Amino acid sequence: MKAFEYLVKNDLLNCNVKFLFEGEEEIGSPSLEAFCTEHKELLKADIILVSDTSMLGTDTPSLTTGLRGLAYWEIEVTGPNRDLHSGHFGGAVANPINTLCELLAKVIDSNGRITIPHFYDDVLPVPQAERDMIAKIPFDLGKYMQNIGVDAVQGEIGYSTLERNSCRPSFDICGIWGGYTGEGSKTVLPSKAYAKVSCRLVANQNHETISQLFIDYMHQIALKSVRLKITPMHGGQGYVCPIDLPAYKAAEKGFEKAFGKKPLAVRRGGSIPIISTFEQILGIKTILMGFGLESNAIHSPNENFDLDMFRKGIVAVVEFYKNYGL
Amino acid sequence: MKAFEYLVKNDLLNCNVKFLFEGEEEIGSPSLEAFCTEHKELLKADIILVSDTSMLGTDTPSLTTGLRGLAYWEIEVTGPNRDLHSGHFGGAVANPINTLCELLAKVIDSNGRITIPHFYDDVLPVPQAERDMIAKIPFDLGKYMQNIGVDAVQGEIGYSTLERNSCRPSFDICGIWGGYTGEGSKTVLPSKAYAKVSCRLVANQNHETISQLFIDYMHQIALKSVRLKITPMHGGQGYVCPIDLPAYKAAEKGFEKAFGKKPLAVRRGGSIPIISTFEQILGIKTILMGFGLESNAIHSPNENFDLDMFRKGIVAVVEFYKNYGL
Repeated sequence: MKAFEYLVKNDLLNCNVKFLFEGEEEIGSPSLEAFCTEHKELLKADIILVSDTSMLGTDTPSLTTGLRGLAYWEIEVTGPNRDLHSGHFGGAVANPINTLCELLAKVIDSNGRITIPHFYDDVLPVPQAERDMIAKIPFDLGKYMQNIGVDAVQGEIGYSTLERNSCRPSFDICGIWGGYTGEGSKTVLPSKAYAKVSCRLVANQNHETISQLFIDYMHQIALKSVRLKITPMHGGQGYVCPIDLPAYKAAEKGFEKAFGKKPLAVRRGGSIPIISTFEQILGIKTILMGFGLESNAIHSPNENFDLDMFRKGIVAVVEFYKNYGL
Repeated sequence: MKAFEYLVKNDLLNCNVKFLFEGEEEIGSPSLEAFCTEHKELLKADIILVSDTSMLGTDTPSLTTGLRGLAYWEIEVTGPNRDLHSGHFGGAVANPINTLCELLAKVIDSNGRITIPHFYDDVLPVPQAERDMIAKIPFDLGKYMQNIGVDAVQGEIGYSTLERNSCRPSFDICGIWGGYTGEGSKTVLPSKAYAKVSCRLVANQNHETISQLFIDYMHQIALKSVRLKITPMHGGQGYVCPIDLPAYKAAEKGFEKAFGKKPLAVRRGGSIPIISTFEQILGIKTILMGFGLESNAIHSPNENFDLDMFRKGIVAVVEFYKNYGL
């Protein structure tokens, strides 16, 4: 808002601006698609500006030109109709937690590849030119590991860490629960086990197709000794922004002014489902002009945002409008 | 107590009786071993009577002559030092829940056999005579499945359901938790994942040896991308009661009086660690004269005990003392 106050006061705003506030992004924006469909005329625009992405670092400004898509499911595995004593039934009756672990362990093979049949059918190979560009991004694997506190990274064989977390799909168990989880020990063969799982998808993968492929696969490999219920949760398509758009050029200038360097164009691993909703329903491309940093610890305890990045963001946004409106 | 009231009032008790009350069985009786060691003289006896087992059914009275042992562990898998956004890190950093599922899925192979190296080294094969006896136990697999609400049973290839849950070891995940487990969806690559797991063991397997074998195996197959902490919880040895003991014969007579039929001698799948503690420290065998039924739903909601079984139990216990004390 500070940016617009400045632009208006100094008569620098050369275009109309519409604001859209939405508060459901973290649960997949369930209301926004209908809103866009109903209000196409109201939402008409040449370009959309969204600040929900992060940069490579304060010394390495970057603009996001690609986002991964998402498919998300909740799985319920039911074994016996009630919790059983593991002494009386253990070894003779399928344990739904054992089964859930077996099913989920099968989704990634020893090469870090996802085993869902036809999962990679629509995945476009990462062009060599883009892989070369990614290889030039300043990246210190040692510092990366130190920052998140791991002794080794792990992912799909044949790809670098930066490729794995931006251009390649992934499969993560986001939550799991079942049986006795209190203090001490209880010998129970539980009735139910649950997991929340998600795939990050890449451009050209359809999240609805993938959602069904996963459901089919799980039912195909599950044994008759348990019952499986898989509920698709939110999903979204991936997104790619061409770097020759005038609005992209204006954003580049904004970042250059704010950070003193031309920003790198990079694909990022996160998903912002509304970006593809905007493209599909309104036919408008989005410029992803975000100012987040890895150190913001997003979706984690002590999430934070640097005040200096707020200020630099204002400079970049002002410069974007000065250039874009011309 | 009703049984003893009757025996004493009618001058039918021909032996001394000592009572031992203990309330820690469900957490592995951590204090009882030391108590037995300290009070060997006080606890001196010819035989121990414990009523903590169940029968095959009201029409099929049975005495328990074998119990499985137990080993129990809590596992903590640590990936990154904080929860990460699965979009930014997914595919590039090991997810501790994925890893936990992979590790636990490897413990049982497709034949239902436990894969821990040397796990079966001390397991004695079930003698053919005993397998023949087990095959004669009235057992309706259809009713068994219907009672617990499953469409199929599952277990070690080459063994029947009654063998699997009494004479063969098993591996159950009793509880699992990690990541986001609330309503809806959250795309998180969590820092930690936990499980509580247990093995039922058979006579001749040492629970401490097995405990260490499992810990070694998990560390051996875990990748460097996560850290593993495995805490052994309670454990216990298996137990076998010879059916030619005078006390066993007296118990047989008790059951015959109460249920009108000679009871079958069967091994059961549960574990009562104190029984082997008594044997090891006090050198006394135990007669397992229990009156539970499958329908008691033990360790499950709506746990219950039939009043008629209380009454039949009194009859059986009175008859035991009348015969044993002679």
